[in-house]
Amino acid sequence: MAQEDVFKKIVSHCKEYGFVFPSSDIYDGLAAVYDYGQNGVELKNNIKEYWWKSMVLLHENIVGIDSAIFMHPTIWKASGHVDAFNDPLIDNRDSKKRYRADVLIEDQIAKYEEKINKEVEKARKKFGEAFDEAKFRETNPRVLDNQKKRDALHERYSEAMNAMDLNELKQIILDEGIVDPISGTKNWTDVRQFNLMFSTEMGSTADSASKIYLRPETAQGIFVNYLNVQKTGRMKIPFGIAQIGKAFRNEIVARQFIFRMREFEQMEMQFFVKPGTEIEWFQKWKETRMKWHQALGFGAENYRFHDHEKLAHYANAATDIEFRMPFGFKEVEGIHSRTDFDLSQHEKFSGRSIKYFDPQTNESYTPYDIETSIGVDRMFLSIMCHSYCEEKLENGETRVVLKLPAALAPVKLCVMPLVKKDGLPEKAREIINNLKFHFNCQYDEKDSIGKRYRRQDAIGTPYCVTVDHDTLKDNTVTLRFRDTMEQERVSIDELNGIIEDKVSIASLLKKIQ
Amino acid sequence: MAQEDVFKKIVSHCKEYGFVFPSSDIYDGLAAVYDYGQNGVELKNNIKEYWWKSMVLLHENIVGIDSAIFMHPTIWKASGHVDAFNDPLIDNRDSKKRYRADVLIEDQIAKYEEKINKEVEKARKKFGEAFDEAKFRETNPRVLDNQKKRDALHERYSEAMNAMDLNELKQIILDEGIVDPISGTKNWTDVRQFNLMFSTEMGSTADSASKIYLRPETAQGIFVNYLNVQKTGRMKIPFGIAQIGKAFRNEIVARQFIFRMREFEQMEMQFFVKPGTEIEWFQKWKETRMKWHQALGFGAENYRFHDHEKLAHYANAATDIEFRMPFGFKEVEGIHSRTDFDLSQHEKFSGRSIKYFDPQTNESYTPYDIETSIGVDRMFLSIMCHSYCEEKLENGETRVVLKLPAALAPVKLCVMPLVKKDGLPEKAREIINNLKFHFNCQYDEKDSIGKRYRRQDAIGTPYCVTVDHDTLKDNTVTLRFRDTMEQERVSIDELNGIIEDKVSIASLLKKIQ
Repeated sequence: MAQEDVFKKIVSHCKEYGFVFPSSDIYDGLAAVYDYGQNGVELKNNIKEYWWKSMVLLHENIVGIDSAIFMHPTIWKASGHVDAFNDPLIDNRDSKKRYRADVLIEDQIAKYEEKINKEVEKARKKFGEAFDEAKFRETNPRVLDNQKKRDALHERYSEAMNAMDLNELKQIILDEGIVDPISGTKNWTDVRQFNLMFSTEMGSTADSASKIYLRPETAQGIFVNYLNVQKTGRMKIPFGIAQIGKAFRNEIVARQFIFRMREFEQMEMQFFVKPGTEIEWFQKWKETRMKWHQALGFGAENYRFHDHEKLAHYANAATDIEFRMPFGFKEVEGIHSRTDFDLSQHEKFSGRSIKYFDPQTNESYTPYDIETSIGVDRMFLSIMCHSYCEEKLENGETRVVLKLPAALAPVKLCVMPLVKKDGLPEKAREIINNLKFHFNCQYDEKDSIGKRYRRQDAIGTPYCVTVDHDTLKDNTVTLRFRDTMEQERVSIDELNGIIEDKVSIASLLKKIQ
Repeated sequence: MAQEDVFKKIVSHCKEYGFVFPSSDIYDGLAAVYDYGQNGVELKNNIKEYWWKSMVLLHENIVGIDSAIFMHPTIWKASGHVDAFNDPLIDNRDSKKRYRADVLIEDQIAKYEEKINKEVEKARKKFGEAFDEAKFRETNPRVLDNQKKRDALHERYSEAMNAMDLNELKQIILDEGIVDPISGTKNWTDVRQFNLMFSTEMGSTADSASKIYLRPETAQGIFVNYLNVQKTGRMKIPFGIAQIGKAFRNEIVARQFIFRMREFEQMEMQFFVKPGTEIEWFQKWKETRMKWHQALGFGAENYRFHDHEKLAHYANAATDIEFRMPFGFKEVEGIHSRTDFDLSQHEKFSGRSIKYFDPQTNESYTPYDIETSIGVDRMFLSIMCHSYCEEKLENGETRVVLKLPAALAPVKLCVMPLVKKDGLPEKAREIINNLKFHFNCQYDEKDSIGKRYRRQDAIGTPYCVTVDHDTLKDNTVTLRFRDTMEQERVSIDELNGIIEDKVSIASLLKKIQ
């Protein structure tokens, strides 16, 4: 199955099984905004719990905070977002549609790539097994020509973006003859900057309300609380502050389902260190974070680091952890050595000293910072993508099963009476009533046991228990395992022991300790 | 100690011990916005977990969702918020300050009350033990006069508010001679309506961006997802949908610390029932929710119901659960029988049928709804207020102790080596390393044991463990209990058994089952 088709199936599975709904669905949705349904919210909460506990329970020197979405507007001056958090936009005068100039050009670069790939595929068909792709790419004149054009365009584009040369971006669009996909014309306006922060008006005095922003990242909420946390928590360098929360970006082009949304959730940890030790800590956090991802059991081959060659002005090292998605390797986490950029900016703009006094060396310094930053929604999507399986069964049917890590699954156990009578429903509920304080249990009495198994497979429930007439005699039930579909007869008294440890977040935490 | 002084102490304790910081503190704060510090975030998360699990784990027929803050703007037309979610505002031309007209008048009513109380206190001092307050209130001419004025004003004010008669509100302010507390003048403008929703612009087309609102309540996110959840979750009436999330109101007068904030968090559950059964369910939810609050152990005398006499246009029954705060009994939760108002409005505005087909009776109907709604921040504040104690110790010193319910405490256990040598720190960390997967542990080696106990008392840690030289010989430690300050020698192997169950959310859930 083509990867795009897999992705489409996952998107529709998410809706059909209560993981992700388009926001405001009955009102035909709101662009690039989504809601988490009854199963999605549990999966998402479990991801957050795994991250949070891995930070604050496993590290003596990491604490959490929860800062507000609303912050003092000067903070976004200090962070650079007011001046530099922009997209270059261009309008087509005929369609009246607005586009990101950089995306139009990137799409054009991709078109050269597509042309090259077409030539390669054509030749592969023609020459069959004897086809030498590498040699073909090096010698075919049409491939070489498109490669040259692609590279030249890429270089010109990169230079223009680095300099944020808006005139040059427009000139590229004109020179490449890029047309509006809707109107089909080249009737473009100039390129202008568009700030990605959402703004609103707070309070109300007779004179004027004040303009504030919805935070475009949670990181600044940590930096401006650095002093309060360090002092009241008596924290010693090195130490970290973790936070989970919503952030908002007015993206013009929101893409790929919940991968890029206007409203999204971040899990960020800022780790403050002594200047000069930051690269060592950067390396340590790369390892720690990779271990966290891989403990989910999806296989190391699906992850890679992508070290940044070009660094943001505030960083002296940066990498992404990329995860294989149906549409290629994509960033799920960023790890950045941000130097003392943020704290220094806040010192400058707030006029407060944000120095750390080291009692051992009697030195004062502005701490350096290593950031680890994950998008919760991306993480959610990557887990859905890798858990989704279609399996052929022995009877020829196909089952759709979400092979979610048990600790993240929305429902841990479904208890099913074989029939809706003879006291079996009561017995099933009795089992649930003993287990429900510790994990999420579901009850299902509708349809055949086979159909009920399929429903639980589709939402990733790791364990199912069937209560039958023997249960009433010998206190045993049939325990069925999602991935292997194996069944085992076990005593009801053993259930908690078998299940609880495997479905707990603690089981994941023990793997990464 | 006067109740206002207690409240001030709690506010400063919240800052000093990392529970609640003013938002953007280094930039001198942002009005009526607060951040949760390293201890506050844990307490808040525990409150949310207690609520969430009490809903979705303990009820087979309640599921959660997590809908976005951004919603389709028509939703707020349907809900009535665009047209009717207003405050009556008035400006003083001299100070240029804006006030809520209703608050100015309520303050005036409170002034009559204060005058009455002053008379009573004067008389009490004069007559001593013989003073008969009831009789005094019934006979003293100054008291009677002020009572009469108070009641007349209250009646006139209530009528004006019910009719939202803006001219009458202004006339009351003029007739009562209310002056601006800043300018001291009566130079008032007319009273105008001011919508409490924050708005922002989403997306960007060449023509126009679209105006959207930050949700002023989480409830509508549940109503517009009703159909998707009911269908994909195969839910049968009666069933409930629970949600925790941020909401935003542009309050002009934000008061009492985190009690009324512009950005706040709600825990709401909408329970959908068959029309005609709603009052029975309303009663059931009143009981269930009261039990949830009282399981925290603060004493039944601190709670009361306040049934609403005047009902909102959409409700046919409503009550508040009130909790005794230092500034009086205040609402912490609302329980409302909202009829089919919301679902019907969304049927009308979205054009979609939101009917439930009852397979047993073959009837179709629009479900009725019982809402339970808590403000997380208020809940947090009420718990802080009731946990905060100052106790005289035998040695004459005072200890400040937060008697938080153990399951809600930010830190569950602090492990302290008696001295920083002889292998005691290593032993202390070994204990933490075995327990930390299950609950939040802290390590502290600084200062005397007594000082360390005080620090843990101040953040509400229920258990402290001291590791001494005997520990290395016999594997025992001193376990110290926060509330009684009693100490007991226990084996390290027993620690998890003693502590885990008492500090788990499950321990609270078992009380309300």
